[in-house]
Amino acid sequence: MNTIDETYYFPLDRYIDPERMSRIREFAQSRETPFLVVDLDLIKERYERFQKTMPFAKVYYAVKANPMDEVIEVLRDLGSNFDVATRYELDQLLRLGVDPSRMSYGNTIKKRSDIAYFFEKGVRVFCSDSFEDTQNIADHAPGSRIFFRLITEGSGSDWPLSRKFGAHSDLIFNLALRSRDLGLVPWGLSFHVGSQQRDIGQYDDGISRAKYLFNCLRDEGIRLSMINIGGGFPANYVDPTLPMETYASEIKRFLHEDFGDVLPEVLIEPGRGMTADAGVIVSEIVLVAKKSKNGLYRWVYLDIGMFGGLIETFNEAIRYPIYFDKTGKSEEIILAGPTCDSMDILYQNYRYRMPHSCRIGDRAYIFSAGAYTQSYSSVNFNGFPPLEAFVLPRNAQPVATVS
Amino acid sequence: MNTIDETYYFPLDRYIDPERMSRIREFAQSRETPFLVVDLDLIKERYERFQKTMPFAKVYYAVKANPMDEVIEVLRDLGSNFDVATRYELDQLLRLGVDPSRMSYGNTIKKRSDIAYFFEKGVRVFCSDSFEDTQNIADHAPGSRIFFRLITEGSGSDWPLSRKFGAHSDLIFNLALRSRDLGLVPWGLSFHVGSQQRDIGQYDDGISRAKYLFNCLRDEGIRLSMINIGGGFPANYVDPTLPMETYASEIKRFLHEDFGDVLPEVLIEPGRGMTADAGVIVSEIVLVAKKSKNGLYRWVYLDIGMFGGLIETFNEAIRYPIYFDKTGKSEEIILAGPTCDSMDILYQNYRYRMPHSCRIGDRAYIFSAGAYTQSYSSVNFNGFPPLEAFVLPRNAQPVATVS
Repeated sequence: MNTIDETYYFPLDRYIDPERMSRIREFAQSRETPFLVVDLDLIKERYERFQKTMPFAKVYYAVKANPMDEVIEVLRDLGSNFDVATRYELDQLLRLGVDPSRMSYGNTIKKRSDIAYFFEKGVRVFCSDSFEDTQNIADHAPGSRIFFRLITEGSGSDWPLSRKFGAHSDLIFNLALRSRDLGLVPWGLSFHVGSQQRDIGQYDDGISRAKYLFNCLRDEGIRLSMINIGGGFPANYVDPTLPMETYASEIKRFLHEDFGDVLPEVLIEPGRGMTADAGVIVSEIVLVAKKSKNGLYRWVYLDIGMFGGLIETFNEAIRYPIYFDKTGKSEEIILAGPTCDSMDILYQNYRYRMPHSCRIGDRAYIFSAGAYTQSYSSVNFNGFPPLEAFVLPRNAQPVATVS
Repeated sequence: MNTIDETYYFPLDRYIDPERMSRIREFAQSRETPFLVVDLDLIKERYERFQKTMPFAKVYYAVKANPMDEVIEVLRDLGSNFDVATRYELDQLLRLGVDPSRMSYGNTIKKRSDIAYFFEKGVRVFCSDSFEDTQNIADHAPGSRIFFRLITEGSGSDWPLSRKFGAHSDLIFNLALRSRDLGLVPWGLSFHVGSQQRDIGQYDDGISRAKYLFNCLRDEGIRLSMINIGGGFPANYVDPTLPMETYASEIKRFLHEDFGDVLPEVLIEPGRGMTADAGVIVSEIVLVAKKSKNGLYRWVYLDIGMFGGLIETFNEAIRYPIYFDKTGKSEEIILAGPTCDSMDILYQNYRYRMPHSCRIGDRAYIFSAGAYTQSYSSVNFNGFPPLEAFVLPRNAQPVATVS
């Protein structure tokens, strides 16, 4: 039921500290919405937290989560490695001076010409989950290191991975044998528990399946030395997650339980967990409308929607914290985007609240929006330009109006 | 079940004539995939068919369906009017020399500054479905003509319209009264039966609701003179539809049954029905993989997916005719896109067939792909550039390699 008139409450301090919020307000003040603003200090903090909580793991940042040049540069300078999805990302990283020895070509779906291109540019680490792709790697990236992706079900995650990626253990076993015969170097195994995974036990499952395959392959003379546990680390959305520290300590326990004192090389591929919380989308209320005389809920249209960067609101999978900068009594609303597409509804089952005092033109702040937003936005659907992205200035300065 | 070895059959002549197909093959030959190629002759044919089958209707082309400059220019020269969703589309049309008297601002979700911008540029026709928006129109586009959108359920359509657009009759009734009091000119009513509507009777429902409101408002001294029956006209996808001629004759019958001999002004807003069949996406097989030893279906990855322009494959809503240019025995497959996003699967419930003889690097032709594809494509998801779009040359010439 629509609990009309409940006082508006939003746990702002759960998502941002007051100093940052005032810098974002100031940056946003004279700027036309919508746009994404990313705080690089938070990316740095996040990277350092991964290093501190999981000192046993090497970070391969999943570039696709947020490919802004400035984000890559910060991570480059911190010493991060990079999980690369396409040759376009490779070109970007090379342009930014990242050495190919710090990259892995993590996409299991690749053209032969792309494999050759990565090899030519110096990349020597490839991921695979099929004979066909492994053969292509052997042909076009001879002698490279290869790791194999185990299929997972991804239950417990907000954005589960489908059966599109990974293969079953028996196929992976044969793949490792074949890769050796083809002159590749079988390096290790990977899995991905699904993005924004809330059930930490899923890592345990993946790790023990990997350990089992390590053993089977050792009997065949193949000594794998790497386990890539992917991503799935939490971002700060509406639904609570366990803290990163718990993820880290549990994963460490799982690893030692299966591998004993001496761990293999451990790789992690955070994307969302690295950048989501560093980004805020600033949006504006375009229209507040009642669709029928006795309609329970008003429709609130923002100037950003599913095709402007919020595609992960599909089926309301990712529930962003959305903050209206007003106080007082509030109501439950339906939130939608600005395009003429009927699918462009953000939330109608999960109800957000908005203060009665909100008016057309007021700002709405969408927190934890630094991952999988800008790069997804459509090139010109309904004529809208792609979402603009900025870096939050360290010292807020009054900004000239952009129109 | 996977009917292995059935001979491959694709009703190519249902989607394209041999001469056009050979021109597309030639155009595609030396060009890097994926891309969309649009045959402007077919746009012209389609426009003329709307005019011929529905001579009582004025065409307002829904620009968002395919906003390519060349498409707009063809329709401009044929005398079409335009349904405009945003000020970006308005700017484009003005740049292409379309007079504002040929435009309607059909999006019910608009910023006040956008209304003012349209008015300033000379647009005098606005659509609305809420008091809030009507007030904004009165404030920023005084004296303009306004029409009101009735809510529909969109059942029977492949891409149904949600409750996001339109309002119930009682609200529309009051909205018309209010608009008059605010100095606007209540012009007519609109509805939209949903895109790719297969149940023609849905138009009857919309028309009779409109007629009822015409009568009610006449009693209040408001004489509406226009009915906008939107789009929903068929494109040639996998599932059969009735021919456009049947849509036209049935709609004509519905109109006369409700309005008698003298029809109000009738507007139609074809988008998909105008451009879908004129476009072919040429794609390439990136990888064919078995995901498990005893997997029934192989996974076929194309170099275009949900985020490269095929977003309407969501929930497999739109089933494009996909043609593999090979013959012989065939098998059922799962079709997916090239990105690292697990959601980027095109079809896994509806099974497409592919000849066994298909190999990595072979072409796949996606027909009826001229609407709601290119403009939706993401700006750089996974680093992929947006889908390229071309116009099919009238006389095929050998084309230089693009790489």
